[in-house]
Amino acid sequence: MGAVRMRVQTADKIKLKIIHTTPVCQLRCFNFKSLKFTRLPHLAGSQQNLDLAKQIRDEWMEFGLDSVELVPYDVLLSYPNKTNPNYISIVDHLGTEIFNTSLAEPVPEGYEDVTDIVPPYSAFSAKGQPEDELVYVNYGRTEDFFKLERELGINCSGKIVIARYGKIFRGNKVKNAMLAGAKGIVLFSDPADYCADGVEPYPDGWNLPGGGAQRGNVLNLNGAGDPLTPGYPAKEYTYRSSLEDAVGLPKIPVHPIGYHDAVHLLQHMGGPHPPDNWKGSLNISYRIGPGFTDGLNQNKVRMNIHTNNQVTRIYNVIGWIRGAVEPDRYVILGGHRDAWVFGGIDPVSGAAVVHENVRAAGKLMKKGWRPRRTLIFASWDAEEFGLLGSTEWAESLILILCVCVCVCAGMYTLRVDCTPSLHTLVYDITKKVSSPEEGEEGMTLYQSWHKRDNSTERDAPWISKLGSGSDFEAYFIRLGIASGRARYTKNRKTERYSSYPVYHSVYETYEIVERFYDPSFRRLEAVARVRGGLIFSLADSPVLPLDCVEYAMSLTKYANSIYQLALKHPAAMQQHSVSFDSLFFAVENFTVVARDFHQRLDQLDTSNALAVRMVNDQLMYLERAFTDPLGLPGRPFYRHIIFAPSSHNKYAGESFPGIYDALFDIENAVDWQKAWDEVKRQISIAAFTVNAAAETLKPVVS
Amino acid sequence: MGAVRMRVQTADKIKLKIIHTTPVCQLRCFNFKSLKFTRLPHLAGSQQNLDLAKQIRDEWMEFGLDSVELVPYDVLLSYPNKTNPNYISIVDHLGTEIFNTSLAEPVPEGYEDVTDIVPPYSAFSAKGQPEDELVYVNYGRTEDFFKLERELGINCSGKIVIARYGKIFRGNKVKNAMLAGAKGIVLFSDPADYCADGVEPYPDGWNLPGGGAQRGNVLNLNGAGDPLTPGYPAKEYTYRSSLEDAVGLPKIPVHPIGYHDAVHLLQHMGGPHPPDNWKGSLNISYRIGPGFTDGLNQNKVRMNIHTNNQVTRIYNVIGWIRGAVEPDRYVILGGHRDAWVFGGIDPVSGAAVVHENVRAAGKLMKKGWRPRRTLIFASWDAEEFGLLGSTEWAESLILILCVCVCVCAGMYTLRVDCTPSLHTLVYDITKKVSSPEEGEEGMTLYQSWHKRDNSTERDAPWISKLGSGSDFEAYFIRLGIASGRARYTKNRKTERYSSYPVYHSVYETYEIVERFYDPSFRRLEAVARVRGGLIFSLADSPVLPLDCVEYAMSLTKYANSIYQLALKHPAAMQQHSVSFDSLFFAVENFTVVARDFHQRLDQLDTSNALAVRMVNDQLMYLERAFTDPLGLPGRPFYRHIIFAPSSHNKYAGESFPGIYDALFDIENAVDWQKAWDEVKRQISIAAFTVNAAAETLKPVVS
Repeated sequence: MGAVRMRVQTADKIKLKIIHTTPVCQLRCFNFKSLKFTRLPHLAGSQQNLDLAKQIRDEWMEFGLDSVELVPYDVLLSYPNKTNPNYISIVDHLGTEIFNTSLAEPVPEGYEDVTDIVPPYSAFSAKGQPEDELVYVNYGRTEDFFKLERELGINCSGKIVIARYGKIFRGNKVKNAMLAGAKGIVLFSDPADYCADGVEPYPDGWNLPGGGAQRGNVLNLNGAGDPLTPGYPAKEYTYRSSLEDAVGLPKIPVHPIGYHDAVHLLQHMGGPHPPDNWKGSLNISYRIGPGFTDGLNQNKVRMNIHTNNQVTRIYNVIGWIRGAVEPDRYVILGGHRDAWVFGGIDPVSGAAVVHENVRAAGKLMKKGWRPRRTLIFASWDAEEFGLLGSTEWAESLILILCVCVCVCAGMYTLRVDCTPSLHTLVYDITKKVSSPEEGEEGMTLYQSWHKRDNSTERDAPWISKLGSGSDFEAYFIRLGIASGRARYTKNRKTERYSSYPVYHSVYETYEIVERFYDPSFRRLEAVARVRGGLIFSLADSPVLPLDCVEYAMSLTKYANSIYQLALKHPAAMQQHSVSFDSLFFAVENFTVVARDFHQRLDQLDTSNALAVRMVNDQLMYLERAFTDPLGLPGRPFYRHIIFAPSSHNKYAGESFPGIYDALFDIENAVDWQKAWDEVKRQISIAAFTVNAAAETLKPVVS
Repeated sequence: MGAVRMRVQTADKIKLKIIHTTPVCQLRCFNFKSLKFTRLPHLAGSQQNLDLAKQIRDEWMEFGLDSVELVPYDVLLSYPNKTNPNYISIVDHLGTEIFNTSLAEPVPEGYEDVTDIVPPYSAFSAKGQPEDELVYVNYGRTEDFFKLERELGINCSGKIVIARYGKIFRGNKVKNAMLAGAKGIVLFSDPADYCADGVEPYPDGWNLPGGGAQRGNVLNLNGAGDPLTPGYPAKEYTYRSSLEDAVGLPKIPVHPIGYHDAVHLLQHMGGPHPPDNWKGSLNISYRIGPGFTDGLNQNKVRMNIHTNNQVTRIYNVIGWIRGAVEPDRYVILGGHRDAWVFGGIDPVSGAAVVHENVRAAGKLMKKGWRPRRTLIFASWDAEEFGLLGSTEWAESLILILCVCVCVCAGMYTLRVDCTPSLHTLVYDITKKVSSPEEGEEGMTLYQSWHKRDNSTERDAPWISKLGSGSDFEAYFIRLGIASGRARYTKNRKTERYSSYPVYHSVYETYEIVERFYDPSFRRLEAVARVRGGLIFSLADSPVLPLDCVEYAMSLTKYANSIYQLALKHPAAMQQHSVSFDSLFFAVENFTVVARDFHQRLDQLDTSNALAVRMVNDQLMYLERAFTDPLGLPGRPFYRHIIFAPSSHNKYAGESFPGIYDALFDIENAVDWQKAWDEVKRQISIAAFTVNAAAETLKPVVS
């Protein structure tokens, strides 16, 4: 560890300079108002979003980038039918619709004249008008369906299910509903998950109003990008599979509603009462279903879904600063540009920061600076439709180094999700940035963050594993490129609501940020400094500031954790001779090799350009070495053996995902021998992968 | 092209020096006799082959390599049961065996006391004693089975088939027999394919004696390596699948026999007469079967196969010379060590050359030389059992540059199979080597080769595509590392026999080489100089001597050729709107980019170490860029989109194999729409891959 710390400290001067010359003080007026990033909707595939792309391209050129290009792809998107709106009804025994859900959200003040606000919908929903009894499935998680089927004896097959938003990615809810045989799924925002205590609904506070609903795609792409061109960029000449063969499209209708509408669907349901922790905070007497207890009416629910899938052109904006010394090594900073409506938080709080980072880079260049490595700035399109822009671009690429993306979605403290080798750099940078919080003058961001969110494992701020849900996915999980994201967030220990209340609703406006989330814009500025520090450091340090010993520590933690999970089955472990020894040996081997590597690094002759390039190649390829071209079982585009989005919640990162999935619900496996053989196979793959990664850090033969 | 030629010429001085300082003059006495490479059998997994590995390790250390190690793997091998021999019988209606094939080959003079000569067998054959009528299937090629089923109306289902060796890899014959429903397959060497005209059988000449038979594995691994650990190295801790789930094992018994035995099986067969070109040169009245026409005897054929599969330890010998300037870039020269019996030609003619190249490198090092890049020498084990040693080692690796392997199996001229980017270097080196042929004093090897085997496409010697059948497979086809092999060969235009007559028989002795193939050992010496030139050039040239324009020319040729194949279906092409435009545009794009790349290379500041490293990375990654992690359909370990072993003959290389396989026999496809959609998909993948490879050669953004 000594070696690592010392090396990081020798690089401090450079970083200090970079962070302090990153001018992000004009965030507010430039990005949010003048640029009108949030004045109009910028739905992927729309004319407004193309216009914004061109505007960004022109400004980035003015800022002084070497080149900026619009990179188009033709991907499958999904829009509501304008003449035949989507809604949910309650129908009586005569088939009469006695209640219909809203066709749109009430538009916030000041935006009444805006056209082209897309109503709440579930992108890529199947079309259809299924009609049947309703079953409430809580959050629609795997464990929720297990409880329904195994403990409560309720069969969802052929029913319409209703799930509350939160806890897991909505696409996983839809997949679970399909697996349970449901013929449609309604998603709603329960106040328990989308309202903070003591806060008013927007515009008086930042809670979700009862008429608001969460848009979002309901795909299960598992990293494939465009559903019609898995594995290949969606260029004009690319072969497109039929919709039947497309990746990840739901086979059933899906629709999101707000809690004012949800009450009507939920309040007279039949069936048993749910467990207490299934009850949200709607003021009704909860029942699970199936069906309604409205006397003789035999009411049912009907979904009316007419959403269309459509191949549509999208545009990434890609800006370049050619590296002075190693132009063939790339550092990417990206964020998406497309928004469900105004995108005040998602994506504009992120996109604005990228914009300021570009401006800062341009200012430095005008002073004669040019980074050692090539810097790439990206404004991704169609993130909301399945990370399509960033994934299609990744499919066109060969060699890159690192990518960072983010949004800013809370008002409590910093949240960083990154690969373990970036931990040290993140801590180091945050020690040079001031806390943006009132009353914390003189405190660093590190101190503020540390105080508010200490790690459970050591005396340092909490850093999270990378899951998915944003544009780093293809770079990190598929290609094995060291990645990170940084954002401002809620207090994860005390706040019950999911993400932030107005997420993906029409109420994500500029004003909600200005009034509630970051009135001084100092939080966004702090995030901008962190991200600026990261990319400038990675692009400019002669030796890459990546820490392999931190990776070793994380591997040790993950190996222990997956071992503990397996130990829940002591008898089966013994019966099937399951051993984790090979994995622990591999992690120990990696740990020793990583320490040795950093010790040698300490004695590196940094005047030897090729010697420096060699260790940088080792550092760069470390992350790559954790990927397996064969991919995870059933998920060929998730190739990282250490990290993958959870199979049960795309938003969450799972460590040693192959072993985890093999162990999941193994007590209910049909063939135990086969199930435990798969556990053993996955342990062997993990052990091999960790050993192979250790090889990349070893010195060439003596 | 001007740029390319000029660059190659500036590197000439270096190469000249290397070739002339490669001391290979003592090949004969050192390798073949003193080392006793051929005195004893060296079957993979045997004590003798381990002893030889240790001897080679010790000698390589003496020669002066930096380090040499034995690298073990535990892989699935296959051996005959010593107490229960394999043979084929004719049985009469009472079940009495009225004829049995030989249990062993007559041992050649001088080797009578040698024990542990493994009898002819088909490694990995299923066990079993099937008994049924016999059907003759010519070479057992796809087209032979098509002819039987579609034109002659003969059904092989439930029968035992007999195929002659030759034309295609024996594993493909077995696969075809299984697809046709056969319950066993006998392989025999017909004199038409294993005897040259006017040549005596060994020991009086180099033809195969009637009692000789060809050993060999009958796997269909498609590049998987060890059948129990596909995709991962077969280390002790590695999970092994069950034999049922193993990759590529035949499900039916297989056995090889010589032509003296084959006559007995073939001479009284029933059924129709075969086409003339199905008749070998056995002096019998050919019939196809099924069954025999021996009056009332109702004779059948019985196979008696007791071969065992067994996980066995094998050892690669890996030797290293650390590169002086770029130690993290690797050039590999390898050949296999394991032999079916004495291996006089296969592998020792190749292994001896590797040994001399190591000795030459050692001599240079003692004079103070050290290559710019790291050189790796490999003596692979278990090549004969499915390229296992080289493939398992490849599975442990991360980064390498180029690999060359060979044997020396003819007496007419040079044969080189290599990736297109090596063409120019190969031509260049052969112009510096003298012809080894008598009566060609003063002529270069290039001139001799050119005279004897001119390309059909241009005025230069013929260079072949890389298929498979040897140890470069995992490096080239799976990992995308520029590869080549060089050997001496027969006159391919006039000689009808397959490979060389005594191939894989007990008659592959030292003496057959000394008496017939290369009495002066000058042919082996010439091959050694070519291979020495290749590896020393690749390891030492500041700029890698790879030629992207040659790759472009080859791509153009392959694109035209696959297009011509598709044009055999003009109506279907039109009906399904099949266009090759995207592929032709991609190839044209690649051609322009490759020319530009070499023009820039010409102006490269070679004193800028990082600039040189950058172009070398581009050159190194070019081959890699042609690979696709998704692999070819159904062949996940064949990842090269431009080249793969033919699906119908592993020995042959197919260009644009994805498109080729999609077009194969398409007129008989069950679902034409689906079949032509797959053609379109494969064209799109090929076009993308060529475009992506062009990207790697482009300059970084201006």
